[in-house]
Amino acid sequence: MYSFKNDYSEGCHPQILQLLSKYSLIQQKGYGEDDLSNKAKALIKQKIQSPNASIHFVSGGTQANIIVLAASLRPHESVVAARSGHICVHEAGAIEATGHKIEMVDTETGKLTPNHIQGIIDKFEDHHMTKPKMVYISNATELGTIYTKEELKNLYVFCKENKLYLYLDGARIGSALASRQNDISWEDLAQYTDVCYLGGTKNGALLGEAIVILHEDLKKDFLFHIKQRGALLAKGSLLGIQFYGLFSEDLFMSLARHANEMAYLMADSIQKKGYLMLTPVASNQIFPILPNDLIQKLLLDFDFYIWKKINAEQSAIRLVTSWATEEKFVRDFCNIIEGYDLM
Amino acid sequence: MYSFKNDYSEGCHPQILQLLSKYSLIQQKGYGEDDLSNKAKALIKQKIQSPNASIHFVSGGTQANIIVLAASLRPHESVVAARSGHICVHEAGAIEATGHKIEMVDTETGKLTPNHIQGIIDKFEDHHMTKPKMVYISNATELGTIYTKEELKNLYVFCKENKLYLYLDGARIGSALASRQNDISWEDLAQYTDVCYLGGTKNGALLGEAIVILHEDLKKDFLFHIKQRGALLAKGSLLGIQFYGLFSEDLFMSLARHANEMAYLMADSIQKKGYLMLTPVASNQIFPILPNDLIQKLLLDFDFYIWKKINAEQSAIRLVTSWATEEKFVRDFCNIIEGYDLM
Amino acid sequence: MYSFKNDYSEGCHPQILQLLSKYSLIQQKGYGEDDLSNKAKALIKQKIQSPNASIHFVSGGTQANIIVLAASLRPHESVVAARSGHICVHEAGAIEATGHKIEMVDTETGKLTPNHIQGIIDKFEDHHMTKPKMVYISNATELGTIYTKEELKNLYVFCKENKLYLYLDGARIGSALASRQNDISWEDLAQYTDVCYLGGTKNGALLGEAIVILHEDLKKDFLFHIKQRGALLAKGSLLGIQFYGLFSEDLFMSLARHANEMAYLMADSIQKKGYLMLTPVASNQIFPILPNDLIQKLLLDFDFYIWKKINAEQSAIRLVTSWATEEKFVRDFCNIIEGYDLM
Amino acid sequence: MYSFKNDYSEGCHPQILQLLSKYSLIQQKGYGEDDLSNKAKALIKQKIQSPNASIHFVSGGTQANIIVLAASLRPHESVVAARSGHICVHEAGAIEATGHKIEMVDTETGKLTPNHIQGIIDKFEDHHMTKPKMVYISNATELGTIYTKEELKNLYVFCKENKLYLYLDGARIGSALASRQNDISWEDLAQYTDVCYLGGTKNGALLGEAIVILHEDLKKDFLFHIKQRGALLAKGSLLGIQFYGLFSEDLFMSLARHANEMAYLMADSIQKKGYLMLTPVASNQIFPILPNDLIQKLLLDFDFYIWKKINAEQSAIRLVTSWATEEKFVRDFCNIIEGYDLM
Repeated sequence: MYSFKNDYSEGCHPQILQLLSKYSLIQQKGYGEDDLSNKAKALIKQKIQSPNASIHFVSGGTQANIIVLAASLRPHESVVAARSGHICVHEAGAIEATGHKIEMVDTETGKLTPNHIQGIIDKFEDHHMTKPKMVYISNATELGTIYTKEELKNLYVFCKENKLYLYLDGARIGSALASRQNDISWEDLAQYTDVCYLGGTKNGALLGEAIVILHEDLKKDFLFHIKQRGALLAKGSLLGIQFYGLFSEDLFMSLARHANEMAYLMADSIQKKGYLMLTPVASNQIFPILPNDLIQKLLLDFDFYIWKKINAEQSAIRLVTSWATEEKFVRDFCNIIEGYDLM
Repeated sequence: MYSFKNDYSEGCHPQILQLLSKYSLIQQKGYGEDDLSNKAKALIKQKIQSPNASIHFVSGGTQANIIVLAASLRPHESVVAARSGHICVHEAGAIEATGHKIEMVDTETGKLTPNHIQGIIDKFEDHHMTKPKMVYISNATELGTIYTKEELKNLYVFCKENKLYLYLDGARIGSALASRQNDISWEDLAQYTDVCYLGGTKNGALLGEAIVILHEDLKKDFLFHIKQRGALLAKGSLLGIQFYGLFSEDLFMSLARHANEMAYLMADSIQKKGYLMLTPVASNQIFPILPNDLIQKLLLDFDFYIWKKINAEQSAIRLVTSWATEEKFVRDFCNIIEGYDLM
Repeated sequence: MYSFKNDYSEGCHPQILQLLSKYSLIQQKGYGEDDLSNKAKALIKQKIQSPNASIHFVSGGTQANIIVLAASLRPHESVVAARSGHICVHEAGAIEATGHKIEMVDTETGKLTPNHIQGIIDKFEDHHMTKPKMVYISNATELGTIYTKEELKNLYVFCKENKLYLYLDGARIGSALASRQNDISWEDLAQYTDVCYLGGTKNGALLGEAIVILHEDLKKDFLFHIKQRGALLAKGSLLGIQFYGLFSEDLFMSLARHANEMAYLMADSIQKKGYLMLTPVASNQIFPILPNDLIQKLLLDFDFYIWKKINAEQSAIRLVTSWATEEKFVRDFCNIIEGYDLM
Repeated sequence: MYSFKNDYSEGCHPQILQLLSKYSLIQQKGYGEDDLSNKAKALIKQKIQSPNASIHFVSGGTQANIIVLAASLRPHESVVAARSGHICVHEAGAIEATGHKIEMVDTETGKLTPNHIQGIIDKFEDHHMTKPKMVYISNATELGTIYTKEELKNLYVFCKENKLYLYLDGARIGSALASRQNDISWEDLAQYTDVCYLGGTKNGALLGEAIVILHEDLKKDFLFHIKQRGALLAKGSLLGIQFYGLFSEDLFMSLARHANEMAYLMADSIQKKGYLMLTPVASNQIFPILPNDLIQKLLLDFDFYIWKKINAEQSAIRLVTSWATEEKFVRDFCNIIEGYDLM
């Protein structure tokens, strides 16, 4: 049984493991003040062409979201997000637990536009309501879609005009930037967001996300917040070493490209057979709409989520690939699709 | 420059690394539902002779404290702790950030007694004050001392009589149980606490603490709290594999014994020279009181904290050893002590 | 300029003022432990036929909501509410500030049904999401509608079957129970909710809401929560005296009946003229849809909110009456309506 | 049985009641935007000679403390206070419930000095601890003592040098400023604090405290915080009218002077008899040390708190007077003292 359920089924890429092994018995400073963390930060700053960025490594995505939002907002300030956003659905109320309301917006594809945000702003008149102060987007989104440079820039400009911070959740930023449709560069990412995080957990690391703070106001005392939320690892070099590995040479992007290629193989095979997709194919998550009995057939050999019932005969499923996905299994999967007789 | 600053300067024990490597490319279920996490939990339950214990792995100690306290207490309930306790000093207000007050008690050695707690209870009369509901202790304490079985049992009985939960922070439980003075068994630990955590980060793991819930009332919905505080790792097997390694054969205890032996080597050498200790020697943290110029001499080759000025000529320092401490450096350190001419 | 903007433009009913004056210089126990608070509680318990109810007086509705929700829910538990509910819109994120998420439901008339709640429950599968534990309803709702006994009972039964608490926000419970359509008795209110509050501020008092706790589990340590949220008045008798006045003889209901009668006068006049209502007329808030130039004409002499644009020619307005509304001004208002020539 | 237990046993001063009555049936704008609230604010600004102060009325002292601290501090910032301070003892963990730690200092008389604060600052080195950002003082203190102008100014200067906000809890500011030892003017109060509140509840009002914000940084969006904590009264004029009454003519100070005079009558009588005081007599709270059987004798006719056992024969009691204290009862009390034969 091979799994396309998610992009965190395997451990880490062998090169990362090798680095961890290499440095394991060498004493390092604690709490992320070690040399390898510093080197990793330097590599990332160079990549995004932002020498003044402030970079911090934490263990996971929900943790990154908690810390960024709690550190950035005053108690009455809220965050605007697409209803499909990770912070709205799958964080067990983590953001509200820090005291902040999420103002949610319905979207088609998981992507926010200035219009969506304007709609929220228009409703918020006075101190009887919260005050929207930050906009949360994911790239790639939870629905596999990605932002274009134009879209990202427009959002950023809109945010600046309305004194909002723009925060990009990059749990799958590798896959987004490696997309065949992508036109956002690393520099753009730094230029058109106020803060973002670069996901390691879903792109080759054992665990680890790199929070990148661009806006000066958000940098102050950030380490206090990491500590206060229980996210300051005693052995911070564990994260530093991994990001050092991911951003040395081109490992981060080459892993993401592999993930996408595996997804495209499946998507092309599915679309060639005439099946539709729930959302456009762009990254390592795809949502094909398949006949229920084909789905049942696939489930005999593969593990994946049935996402949504479409009608009596068809459902959308979610397929997720990763840096570790083996092409052999993808081809087996495609073969079943291609061999299936349409009703 | 060799460091005795803390017990988290190195990565993980080679056996742990080997296990991580062995399982790295094998697909595992996410969020701690994998087989290796289950096996690790079974090993721990067997060790503590508590088949009904509920066990959860998280990344770090502050995180464990946040989750246990926030999950156990209603908003008006407080936790009683020694003023030297980790939650009081070095967690950047993490407990208060979840809304709870810590009622602090001054102690000599970092250890709480029923008398200390009674003193707090006596002051709390009504709804104008918080309601103490949990008692937090560390074993070994932040001052290197350990509880005897008698002391632990008395605390537990007192807590039960006063409807208080007893929570033991075991960041250094390995070192405590491996102490030459210890008479607490693994079974005692489960019997005389309501919830505790077993520290992996400071005893051979890359990261990881095992929260062990004994009291039935504290088990309910615990996973929600782990998720809400950002502590549910996507790749939960990372923690499970390590605890599987630590609790297979006797690795956990043998690593702790090594740490203690290294500390005892230093303590014996220091005490033979006639120097006093700030607190009794029991675990892998010792606090010798040394002449300032001896300290300066030691600092040329070794890194450690100067803990406290004692008088114009002497200061207490903190020396911490670990599973990774090399005997060679300990002997070098002792040689300097022994070769030092008293004024 | 006479205002129909809200039901809190005036101070308090003369009988209440007289009582405050009568007891002003007589020493009372502090913090709500005075005799008049106790007498007021006894009157309410008798009225709702619930001798075991636990009753607490606080200053305002948002305060009552904060305290009830924060005292009842564990950190991972959420509250289900209609999107038009006061806690969702006009409390500046007060509920989220206590750490809890509100799961919102779209409704036509501001009223929740078991179907709405079932829809929420169906989505909440595991510990990656919050756990709905309480249902919040308002009666009368923010849209002027009221629940029937059948509806309330069904909700309550559904909540019990699903282990949910049912909480009724009765900021305008007087107007709801005094409605010409109402069939809920005071006893029903106690029988078919777990906790509710009876609004004094909008029904004759200077300020004050009576929180009535019916479910045993919600009573414990409630005073701590009142104190912790800053709601325990030093001069608690201020609230007790007012509720004593409101629940002696029939003042509470007679004031509510007056408010409703004033609203019905306007509604009947408006409907006789052929204008529609946005939501059914039931309590002291009505939402007529009027031609924009009639609205402009009315605004010359009266103050009220324009609620919603309906089309190019018409808008819905909100008219609110109270115990203090003078019939003379209502008649003047109706005269303008009736004298207006339809285009 | 006449009570000297506290200064909130009676309702409000007759002049206040008269004003409430006068305006009761006149429609006012809601939420504190009414004319009388505005007039009251103007009177206070004039009194403190601070035309740019931002003034807000809330119901009680704990509420004021919650709002000021939660609005002023980021999550990792803490407040420094004397251990006897109201926020440390008698607010049921209200400050911690907003997420903030209180760093407490032992004092003799309830008064903080720059030395106390320096001691705290010295311990706070890095992001493993909270960051002290606000200093909380009470005047008069919970022990009846008051600050001199010199002391207040020194604290303020020290706070400015250390980038700390100085917050003064003026629940009993009337009594402090009316003290026979006081040399702080209303202008000084505004000049040497960043934010303070002026207590109405304990000085003639039914309820009400006026928060006065002087520091520009603390003014922004303050209304949101009042609303979020459930403290924005629908009938805000209730508070405005009372402060209008208190600050018209000299009512506020004349009431405070009466309270103090009643306390001095008792203190002088007690001291003339040779009894000592636990803390210096300065305001409307005094703490005489009396023989236990004299205390028992007094308790037959008067109600007051026994504060602290001093030795086998003597205890300190707390006597509190107010604007409403009747001289007749004070004289009866003194007669018992004076007629008591020493053993």
